[in-house]
Amino acid sequence: MPTLHSVLETALYVDDLGRSRAFYAEDLELPLLLENQRMCAFDVGGQSVLLLFLRGGSTQDMPTPGGTIPGHDGYGPLHMAFAISAEDLPAWEQRLRERRIPIASRVTWPRGGTSVYFHDPDGHVLELATPGLWATY
Amino acid sequence: MPTLHSVLETALYVDDLGRSRAFYAEDLELPLLLENQRMCAFDVGGQSVLLLFLRGGSTQDMPTPGGTIPGHDGYGPLHMAFAISAEDLPAWEQRLRERRIPIASRVTWPRGGTSVYFHDPDGHVLELATPGLWATY
Repeated sequence: MPTLHSVLETALYVDDLGRSRAFYAEDLELPLLLENQRMCAFDVGGQSVLLLFLRGGSTQDMPTPGGTIPGHDGYGPLHMAFAISAEDLPAWEQRLRERRIPIASRVTWPRGGTSVYFHDPDGHVLELATPGLWATY
Repeated sequence: MPTLHSVLETALYVDDLGRSRAFYAEDLELPLLLENQRMCAFDVGGQSVLLLFLRGGSTQDMPTPGGTIPGHDGYGPLHMAFAISAEDLPAWEQRLRERRIPIASRVTWPRGGTSVYFHDPDGHVLELATPGLWATY
């Protein structure tokens, strides 16, 4: 049986690409990998890629020279989590304060990890999670 | 500046948890980490976690002993990608055939990677991607 190594890409759908680009590139300092009128892609720690799509802009199948990318789209306040180290948690909370991003809540998990939740400009629920959340993390 | 290490969790919203659980646990053989009436969580390669939420079941803030998890929800055919090794690509295509999961399309990327796209039972657009897709992968 072949295996799945990791979640390589996760996608959020946004109403204003410029506003979201600023949030992820400046507030969270994610390096930009790709940007066009339809989407942005950000590197996450050299391990994963966060995709932002303009809502309604990727509903159709998209032909490329190498093949067709199937259409997709999304509504609602989605959820995703970033892995951070426990040592970085205070610096992240300070960073969010500096950028005037309200912390929506904090959760301490039975295994010892901590999650900090906040919202992006579209109301997506973002989480910074330290190890000790899952049996595998 | 503190860093983000990776995408730890990505979430999909589904209409029938049992149907989706079968798809991800049996067809894709992802190990189940957690299951309740509201959600399932699957380990992905010991690196990431795929969360499935019953659509409409997580809209409210959820108190837990360690703090409150903010509400979220999602509609539409979302997109996410799993990392696979290039050597596993033929075995994955065979696996999809055996499980009668139609391949929606294949894309070959300028950097040499390949993506295979297919749909989950809710129409979410899943991708298996080999290295050579992004500058960082």
